[in-house]
Amino acid sequence: MKLWDKGIQVNDKVDSFTVGKDRELDLYLAPFDVLGTMAHITMLESVGLLQQEELQQLMAELKNIYAEAVNGSFKIEAGVEDVHSQVEMMLTERLGDVGKKVHSGRSRNDQVLLDLKLFIRSKIEHVVEAVKEFFEALQTQSENYKDALIPGYTHLQVAMPSSFGLWLGAYAESLTDDMYMLKAAWKISNQNPLGAAAGYGSSFPLNRQLTTELLGFDNMNYNVVYAQLGRGKTEKNVAMALSSVAYTVGKFATDACLYMSQNFGFLSLPGELTTGSSIMPHKKNPDVFELIRAKCNQLQSLPQSIAMITGNLPSGYFRDLQLIKETFLPAFDELISCLDLATFAVKNITIKKDVLNNEMYKYAFSVEEVNKLVLQGVPFRDAYKQVAALIEEGNFEPELNVAHTHEGTIGNLCNAQVKQKMDTLVDSFNFSAVSQAIESLSK
Amino acid sequence: MKLWDKGIQVNDKVDSFTVGKDRELDLYLAPFDVLGTMAHITMLESVGLLQQEELQQLMAELKNIYAEAVNGSFKIEAGVEDVHSQVEMMLTERLGDVGKKVHSGRSRNDQVLLDLKLFIRSKIEHVVEAVKEFFEALQTQSENYKDALIPGYTHLQVAMPSSFGLWLGAYAESLTDDMYMLKAAWKISNQNPLGAAAGYGSSFPLNRQLTTELLGFDNMNYNVVYAQLGRGKTEKNVAMALSSVAYTVGKFATDACLYMSQNFGFLSLPGELTTGSSIMPHKKNPDVFELIRAKCNQLQSLPQSIAMITGNLPSGYFRDLQLIKETFLPAFDELISCLDLATFAVKNITIKKDVLNNEMYKYAFSVEEVNKLVLQGVPFRDAYKQVAALIEEGNFEPELNVAHTHEGTIGNLCNAQVKQKMDTLVDSFNFSAVSQAIESLSK
Amino acid sequence: MKLWDKGIQVNDKVDSFTVGKDRELDLYLAPFDVLGTMAHITMLESVGLLQQEELQQLMAELKNIYAEAVNGSFKIEAGVEDVHSQVEMMLTERLGDVGKKVHSGRSRNDQVLLDLKLFIRSKIEHVVEAVKEFFEALQTQSENYKDALIPGYTHLQVAMPSSFGLWLGAYAESLTDDMYMLKAAWKISNQNPLGAAAGYGSSFPLNRQLTTELLGFDNMNYNVVYAQLGRGKTEKNVAMALSSVAYTVGKFATDACLYMSQNFGFLSLPGELTTGSSIMPHKKNPDVFELIRAKCNQLQSLPQSIAMITGNLPSGYFRDLQLIKETFLPAFDELISCLDLATFAVKNITIKKDVLNNEMYKYAFSVEEVNKLVLQGVPFRDAYKQVAALIEEGNFEPELNVAHTHEGTIGNLCNAQVKQKMDTLVDSFNFSAVSQAIESLSK
Amino acid sequence: MKLWDKGIQVNDKVDSFTVGKDRELDLYLAPFDVLGTMAHITMLESVGLLQQEELQQLMAELKNIYAEAVNGSFKIEAGVEDVHSQVEMMLTERLGDVGKKVHSGRSRNDQVLLDLKLFIRSKIEHVVEAVKEFFEALQTQSENYKDALIPGYTHLQVAMPSSFGLWLGAYAESLTDDMYMLKAAWKISNQNPLGAAAGYGSSFPLNRQLTTELLGFDNMNYNVVYAQLGRGKTEKNVAMALSSVAYTVGKFATDACLYMSQNFGFLSLPGELTTGSSIMPHKKNPDVFELIRAKCNQLQSLPQSIAMITGNLPSGYFRDLQLIKETFLPAFDELISCLDLATFAVKNITIKKDVLNNEMYKYAFSVEEVNKLVLQGVPFRDAYKQVAALIEEGNFEPELNVAHTHEGTIGNLCNAQVKQKMDTLVDSFNFSAVSQAIESLSK
Repeated sequence: MKLWDKGIQVNDKVDSFTVGKDRELDLYLAPFDVLGTMAHITMLESVGLLQQEELQQLMAELKNIYAEAVNGSFKIEAGVEDVHSQVEMMLTERLGDVGKKVHSGRSRNDQVLLDLKLFIRSKIEHVVEAVKEFFEALQTQSENYKDALIPGYTHLQVAMPSSFGLWLGAYAESLTDDMYMLKAAWKISNQNPLGAAAGYGSSFPLNRQLTTELLGFDNMNYNVVYAQLGRGKTEKNVAMALSSVAYTVGKFATDACLYMSQNFGFLSLPGELTTGSSIMPHKKNPDVFELIRAKCNQLQSLPQSIAMITGNLPSGYFRDLQLIKETFLPAFDELISCLDLATFAVKNITIKKDVLNNEMYKYAFSVEEVNKLVLQGVPFRDAYKQVAALIEEGNFEPELNVAHTHEGTIGNLCNAQVKQKMDTLVDSFNFSAVSQAIESLSK
Repeated sequence: MKLWDKGIQVNDKVDSFTVGKDRELDLYLAPFDVLGTMAHITMLESVGLLQQEELQQLMAELKNIYAEAVNGSFKIEAGVEDVHSQVEMMLTERLGDVGKKVHSGRSRNDQVLLDLKLFIRSKIEHVVEAVKEFFEALQTQSENYKDALIPGYTHLQVAMPSSFGLWLGAYAESLTDDMYMLKAAWKISNQNPLGAAAGYGSSFPLNRQLTTELLGFDNMNYNVVYAQLGRGKTEKNVAMALSSVAYTVGKFATDACLYMSQNFGFLSLPGELTTGSSIMPHKKNPDVFELIRAKCNQLQSLPQSIAMITGNLPSGYFRDLQLIKETFLPAFDELISCLDLATFAVKNITIKKDVLNNEMYKYAFSVEEVNKLVLQGVPFRDAYKQVAALIEEGNFEPELNVAHTHEGTIGNLCNAQVKQKMDTLVDSFNFSAVSQAIESLSK
Repeated sequence: MKLWDKGIQVNDKVDSFTVGKDRELDLYLAPFDVLGTMAHITMLESVGLLQQEELQQLMAELKNIYAEAVNGSFKIEAGVEDVHSQVEMMLTERLGDVGKKVHSGRSRNDQVLLDLKLFIRSKIEHVVEAVKEFFEALQTQSENYKDALIPGYTHLQVAMPSSFGLWLGAYAESLTDDMYMLKAAWKISNQNPLGAAAGYGSSFPLNRQLTTELLGFDNMNYNVVYAQLGRGKTEKNVAMALSSVAYTVGKFATDACLYMSQNFGFLSLPGELTTGSSIMPHKKNPDVFELIRAKCNQLQSLPQSIAMITGNLPSGYFRDLQLIKETFLPAFDELISCLDLATFAVKNITIKKDVLNNEMYKYAFSVEEVNKLVLQGVPFRDAYKQVAALIEEGNFEPELNVAHTHEGTIGNLCNAQVKQKMDTLVDSFNFSAVSQAIESLSK
Repeated sequence: MKLWDKGIQVNDKVDSFTVGKDRELDLYLAPFDVLGTMAHITMLESVGLLQQEELQQLMAELKNIYAEAVNGSFKIEAGVEDVHSQVEMMLTERLGDVGKKVHSGRSRNDQVLLDLKLFIRSKIEHVVEAVKEFFEALQTQSENYKDALIPGYTHLQVAMPSSFGLWLGAYAESLTDDMYMLKAAWKISNQNPLGAAAGYGSSFPLNRQLTTELLGFDNMNYNVVYAQLGRGKTEKNVAMALSSVAYTVGKFATDACLYMSQNFGFLSLPGELTTGSSIMPHKKNPDVFELIRAKCNQLQSLPQSIAMITGNLPSGYFRDLQLIKETFLPAFDELISCLDLATFAVKNITIKKDVLNNEMYKYAFSVEEVNKLVLQGVPFRDAYKQVAALIEEGNFEPELNVAHTHEGTIGNLCNAQVKQKMDTLVDSFNFSAVSQAIESLSK
């Protein structure tokens, strides 16, 4: 079934090529498409384009369909082009001609714009939750292991003393910066495009303010040409926010893979979190961290891949933009699964004690020795040269203790201050305002 | 001169390969390096690592160097590795041994982290200004040409009526969304990394809160391992914000190039803004828009190119991170030049009147005709089929007027509401707080 | 079932995360995995690691499994980790202990390396066929429409006369250059990695020359560490070749979308190859070209996305490399579908006659007029200025005929010479040598 | 000076924005521009568009300019737009009106296409030389250290025995595969675009076959529209070949950085090839390998960055394409410098002896023990389980010797066969044919 059927049979080859994976992908959007339709028809009724009775009839059936979409029983039937067509068809089949009225004043263009915004909002909330859990696991372990020293590296050369507490806490703080990107993505997405129709508005007297409120949006994309321009651009910006989180999670996994190598031996995972080799009976491999790393790298390619599709296209809708759904829609769940597994692994990680008691790491204390001289009044640059000479002569024997006290160091991790940053950021999303609106609309 | 000179002569080939373009690139950072040193030594004095007299002496000289850096006379001498070494060397040459004391409690790693944050803050402010000017030019022209209709396209097929006002206003609104990304970049950058030293802090009793305040930072990167992890990550996130602006500006240029083609003929530029051909005497080419488009595409590749460098590197400093400077530091000025030229072009653009009076565009009114039937009570899907039949038979003769009144359409552009969004966003940066801090420190 | 099962139950969450889509993706590799096993055991028997009888027994069963893999009835059972495990398990179930012997002297690492090489070889052959069909369609239409003039553009400004013949022939020639990239991909892939085991070879006296011949490879990846290093690298290089073809096909689609706009009107597609709009009853949209364009852009992102995964990983196998299969394996069919649809569209395209008879295009003849003056003895630069002056005064009235005769111009398309290039390239792959080897092995 | 000057003064802002870095970048192209002009005018004379005397006069002066371009004294004067304009202006200044005749039958579009092809050919030859030197250094050291064992890793977990010989030889073989990509780039570039003019050919009776021969091209880009389409596409394909080499060199550097870490300690560099830290007196950092890695990653981003610029642009010249020069022209020298430094480092590397004599590495021998059981008749999968059990019980005590004899393993590196691959590939470029043509033309 095609909403634009005018009696010409589309060539099968063309049809299957253009529909592509839309039927499968549109299932991600189904509940949001129904919600959008609920808001749209409520507004249509308010401006006289639908009778109150028609509205009630339609709303009742939409609530049924919404339940199906949420519980996963909603299907896009063979021959039906997309989720928008499926919902309209279900209404028409079940309610008759009134179902044909729901499309007044909108186009599939602003419908999918809206579905995407609602979908993104919902998924960002899940991402934020998963980030928060990973954050908490990292901070908890950071406190647990704050006294366990490890060498810190620069250039992968032993540099200065560090600690598990410092290392784990670093990734927690990294997530706070990622949250700024998620917040930007949220603000961009939390604006109502409905009413843009095919990107040029409608001659119907739509009330866009009303749908904005019904759907719990912060604001609207006023200019209808911009609302359409937001397609592709929104996805790219949101993907950049996901990419920011992926950067943190991926880098954590990179460190973990390195530290699990026998040559470092700082960390291990229990056997049931590792995998083996088909020929080497001794192997316990950190596949879980490797796949987190790889998936996070994949996610970091997503904005560029979207940019390749949108680049140099003029304004106005193009079918090209549909293809973005293939990589964009599943990206959230990919990231969330990486966050979940990373959280699970962090909670189950075993650290090695007394790592620093190894001759190999003694040079990590060279700056400590320089600093002692400085505190005795030797200018920094001269103290540096004295210690360098001792090392060169083989006479460097440092004391193996660390007294770092300023903010953010081994002895003063400032995890509480970092938690404060995170809490403030999470609160600022105000997810509950959105949930309440959605609840009122759909219940 | 090398701060780490221990008497071994570095191979010339290696030296020239590793120093690369650092001397040239570090000039971008010079004033910020001096500011950072001012804050650092003020703090050193406060914790007893410098005498008050030494501080005064050093500050006086740093103010001189700052003036040189700002007026462009500051140079990195041949044989000096980078800006950090140059400043330390100038102090030592001019003031003697006291110059050697400024490096206590810091490393070139946190110095460059700090320089980058201060540089980014300064450049984001310029970008925001340039965005705002482009925004104003677009809105002004949108109001000027709000009654001039053009066809709106989907699939580059004539779709529905649009207007210059709508088209220009769309790009203005697009900039408001870009501002959310710039804001995130700003929040991430406006945090103090100083005190991280080589990424593992210092055994000196540094007061990081003090340098945070002196430099007007919102907050600090507490965890010192994270402060170092921010290298590369900050640049990538900031580049994503620039990429967002570049998306808008580049797409505007794409439209402009298309509309300047004789086949559209919607726009023209005065002769002195176009270029010619070496063999075709009639050509007046929109090179300015083409280069804006190309540069904006280049900018959109920047985050991925940074990600390639940082990808799969463990935590801790690596020299790889230096290379990011080559593409990152000039990116701001590239974007600003694109914004400036786009602003200039928009102000000088000539639009064609009465574009829609062309038989070719009459189908742009098909939805209007459908909607009229709907308002007469015909269900939408049936009205659609009636008009489709008229068109197929060659009997479609629409009225050529447009009555779009809802928010964001031809008759109701909502430029004022969009301006409100922009103003709120610009204000939220609170640039003056930063300027005041910098002024107190450097004057 | 896990080949490396040592009695520890892997955590379900970890198991499902790490197995990911491997079961589904490995179906692409199934027939090749069986072929590789056939060659491997033939070799094992030749060096005394298998009895002749065992070999016969195993070969008979592998031929059955091969038939299943080719006809699509082969399945990877729930709980079985991958295709390699599935095949080994089927042999063991059906034949008993002898099935456990097939893994001697190899690892899943070189097995998947081999499967990928065989898969790539097979797919490159299909791509080359699809390229050739598109090439032929373009050349045929180029000859059909060699006299139909259109304007040629630079800067999307009307520049000089061109023709449909020239335009279509250009894309045919573009494909010849893409073929060089495909050839490089083929040469890189047509080398035997089997025997690398886990990337460090085997203490068994393997005969790698024999498997090289049995599988019809040109050569082998000698160094076993390199054979493993080829994982990821091969995929990236092959993806670059696909990206080259995608560049051509995508750009053709871009032109087609533009030329189908009413503002150009050079081309149209029959109704059954276009799609409609849900609200605009007049629309006939070139979705098919838009999706070709978008998919080709997606394909052009593939090498970078692979590079993000492989970047900065040291040598040796990592699980990260598995993830590449998700985007790499389906890429060939995506490209082939784009080529097929483009071929189909080119064959069905309708061109507009007499495009150049439009006042708008008369300046396309300005260089012709300059050249006439030059042939009369006026220096080029002076002739240019004379014609420029005529145009500026509004007195330019060119003759509307074209006499381009040199190689590759309107009057002398050189399609035959371009075909010669293509034929030579296609022949040089020598696909039949490979087919014969595979046939001998599997029949 | 502008070749297209028609008396309108271009706005300064626009002029400086559009000229950009062209004057600086065009110096890369200067000698090739002169060569192209020599071939073009030789052809013009042959078809009667230039007198023999004029040709001689112009050729004599062009040889002077060529010498300037080669020795570096050639300059593009302020106010002159590009190298093409500069050469034409020099001829006119020095020889009078005859200088104005050289542009007949060509455009700056095909001039720059030609310059780029000649430039690329020249640079590919340099890259191939640098690859060959790196290859030879790797093979030499591979033979030198063929008996020095190291652990081989999978998942960065100790896996099986490897050797320095194997490791170094692997990168040599990797370069042979890169050579296939360079060869494809060479074949694509070694075709003559001259005669395409602005992309639509010329009404002059040009003899493109003659310029093809004069410039030593293999073939020509026949179709003039394709010759122009090659702009951007050629650069992208060539960049992909550079990216392939960069992959190998970058990964080698990644390994080297890892192996130089104290936690591996396999390698070291002499002091004069390392750098120090401004605060840690003990540091000897592998900056040289880090920068090779980073630059190779940057190079791997180049194809995507070009694709972003060319993506979705229709056929025909656009100014966008000029911007590609900024990143493309310097890329060759970047890659060559990485190859040179890598060669230098490999020659100076110090390896650690007896690495494997460390308890940590004993599990590297587990497969050897499995294989011994298999050779005694135990089915592989059962032998695997027996050894796994020994390891689990802590009773695994392997013999520490390795007897790998098949092709490409520790005991049989096959460096000679790999060298054979390389030699055949290098010979197939046939650089001397090109050199001879260029020499005849320019001497």
